[in-house]
Amino acid sequence: MTTSTPAGITREPAARSSADARADRADPAPIGLTMGDPAGIGPELLLRALARPPQGLEPRNLVVYGSATWLRLQAARLDLPPPGKDVRIIDCASVPDDLSLGKVSAAAGEAAYQAVHRAAQDAMKGTVRAVVTAPLHKAAMHLAGHHYPGHTEILAAAAGDVPVRMMLANPELRTVLVSIHLPLRRAIETLSEAGILQTIQLTQAFLQRSGVPSPRIAVAGLNPHAGEDGLLGSDEQTIIGPAIAAARRAGIDATGPWPPDTVFMRARGFVHHDVVIAMYHDQGLIPVKYLGVEHGVNVTVGLPFVRTSPDHGTAFDIAARGGADPSSFITALTMADGMSRPIS
Amino acid sequence: MTTSTPAGITREPAARSSADARADRADPAPIGLTMGDPAGIGPELLLRALARPPQGLEPRNLVVYGSATWLRLQAARLDLPPPGKDVRIIDCASVPDDLSLGKVSAAAGEAAYQAVHRAAQDAMKGTVRAVVTAPLHKAAMHLAGHHYPGHTEILAAAAGDVPVRMMLANPELRTVLVSIHLPLRRAIETLSEAGILQTIQLTQAFLQRSGVPSPRIAVAGLNPHAGEDGLLGSDEQTIIGPAIAAARRAGIDATGPWPPDTVFMRARGFVHHDVVIAMYHDQGLIPVKYLGVEHGVNVTVGLPFVRTSPDHGTAFDIAARGGADPSSFITALTMADGMSRPIS
Repeated sequence: MTTSTPAGITREPAARSSADARADRADPAPIGLTMGDPAGIGPELLLRALARPPQGLEPRNLVVYGSATWLRLQAARLDLPPPGKDVRIIDCASVPDDLSLGKVSAAAGEAAYQAVHRAAQDAMKGTVRAVVTAPLHKAAMHLAGHHYPGHTEILAAAAGDVPVRMMLANPELRTVLVSIHLPLRRAIETLSEAGILQTIQLTQAFLQRSGVPSPRIAVAGLNPHAGEDGLLGSDEQTIIGPAIAAARRAGIDATGPWPPDTVFMRARGFVHHDVVIAMYHDQGLIPVKYLGVEHGVNVTVGLPFVRTSPDHGTAFDIAARGGADPSSFITALTMADGMSRPIS
Repeated sequence: MTTSTPAGITREPAARSSADARADRADPAPIGLTMGDPAGIGPELLLRALARPPQGLEPRNLVVYGSATWLRLQAARLDLPPPGKDVRIIDCASVPDDLSLGKVSAAAGEAAYQAVHRAAQDAMKGTVRAVVTAPLHKAAMHLAGHHYPGHTEILAAAAGDVPVRMMLANPELRTVLVSIHLPLRRAIETLSEAGILQTIQLTQAFLQRSGVPSPRIAVAGLNPHAGEDGLLGSDEQTIIGPAIAAARRAGIDATGPWPPDTVFMRARGFVHHDVVIAMYHDQGLIPVKYLGVEHGVNVTVGLPFVRTSPDHGTAFDIAARGGADPSSFITALTMADGMSRPIS
C-alpha cells in the first residue's frame, strides 16, 4: 500500500485515498533505473536497490538501463546478489571489463550518457512511467563528447527542449530553484519576472499532478529581509513581486517575496508552505541539505515524465571500496513511484 | 555551575574545567540587560528573564538599562512579577506612561537608544562584564535622530569604531557573516580578501577567548559548488582562497572555500568545523534559523566586551497581547554569562 511517500508528496487526505485506489490497480508501466557512471557508486546503488526494492515495488516493476555484464562483475566484486531474472536489463552501455573504478574516463562517460538517453526515449514513449537516475560524472561525459551540464539538460533535450526546473525535496522540505549552475553574480543578473513566473507555474503543475491539489507556493526574496521595502535591494519590487502578482492573477496560491532567512524555517514540515521557490542554487540547497544529503531527492519539474535522482554524486573516492549508502537512491525510487502511479 | 553554555561555547573538556574553576570565584561584575524598544516585547522578555534567570545567575548579578516606571507598568499589565529589590535598574530611558504598544515612535526609539548607549559605556568601563540587548526598532530609532542600522553599529561606535562582525549561534551551529545588511549584489561587490581575512581573525580571537582553544574555521565559497575550479565563478580563486591562505600563514586553522550547500551540514553539531564564515547575510542565516529562531543567539564579534542578543525583533504585532517567548533572550543571557566569566 502506497499511502504516503517521502517529501510529503501525496500527503493530503484526498491524495491519500486516491493513492489507495491506485494501489488496487494492476501493474502500471515499470520504472526505469539508469546505472550512472560505471566507475562511480551508481552500479552499487542499483544492485542494492534491486536486492531490496522499496515497499510496493517488485523487481519485475523495474527496468535497468546499463550494462548487464558490468553489473554482474560488480555484484561479484562487492559480494552483492546479481540482478535477478525478474529484472529486465536494457543493455545500452558498453563498459570495458577492465574499467578503473573511481577514475574519469570517456568510456565511462559514454556508458553513463547512453543509459540516460535511452531511458529518456522510453519514458517519452511511455514504456517506463518514471526514470530514476544514478549519478553520472560531468567531466567523463564531456570527455565522451556529450556537452551537457548534467542529467537535467539531457532529459529536457530528449523531451523536446521543454523548460525544466530542479526541485530538491526531503521528507520535510521542498524547494524549486529559479536557476542552477551559474556563478552567483550571473544568477542575479539573469533573474527575470518571466523566469520566476515560469518556475511558479511549472511547480504548480507538478505538485498538482503529484497529489497536492492546491499548493501553497512561497517565493523567497533575493536580498536580506526580502529587500526591506527597497532599503536593502529593489529586486523584490521590480522583478519578484510582479511575478508573484502575475501568478496570483492566474489563480495560483503564490505568496512572498518572503525574507530568505526565515521562509525555509516556515516551510519546514510543510507547516506554512508546500514548497519554496528559491532565487539561486545555494539559497534553496543550503536548507534542504542541512539535515543530511542522505534524505534528499532531486526531482526534475517540467518534463512530461517523472524523473528523480539521489542528491549526491558519483563518489569516486569510495567507488572501489564498496559500502555506499543507497538511502537517497531508494528514496528517489519510492518518490518516483508515488508520483507516477496512474490515477484511477 | 556553568560547565557548558548553549551553542557549544566552552564545550571542550579543557574549557569545561576552567569554567568549573570560574564558578568557584566570588561574583564577577554583573551583566547588563537593555530594555529594547518599550513599545515592543523587550520589556516583557526582560521581566520574564528577571523572574526566572538562567542557572548560575541571581537577580543581583544583573543590571537593567531602561525605565523602572515602564517596567513596573508592564509587569502590572501583563500580570508578571515586577523587578525585585535585588535588581539594579539604571533609569536612562524616559518613556511616556501612555506610549502605544506595537507602534513606531520617536519617544520609544529614543528610550531604546539611550539604554544601549549607556550599557555600552558601562561595558567599556568594566562596570558590567557583558551586555544582552532586547530588540529595538530601527525606524523608531531613526525617528529619534539616531541613524544607526542596528545595535551592532551603536556598540562598535561606543567602543571606538572597532571592526566587528555578526555571529549567529544556536546549540548546534555557529556562523560569522562577512557582511550583513547589504543588497546581495552589493555584498558580492564589496567582498574582499582583507574583509574575509579580518572576519577569520576576529572569529579566531573571539572563539579562543570563549573557550575553544584551536577553532576549526570553515570558510564558505560564494558560488555554487565553491566555483567548481572556476567553472561557476572565480571569487573562490581570486579573493576567498587567498584570504584563507593568509589566515593559515598566520597559524589559524582555516579551511575552504567549501561548497556553500554542504558546509553548514558538515558543521552541524560541530562535527567537522567549529564555525562557518559566511560570505553574505542569508548564506549564514538560512541554516542557523532553519531549526527555529527561538534557539538562535546573535553575538557581536570584535568588541572589547561580550554582547549577545536574541535572534528576533520587537514583534510589535504581539507586544500588546503578552505571551512573548523569552527562550532566545534567556539563551542569549546564558551565553553572555558563559563567555564573560573571568578566567581564574
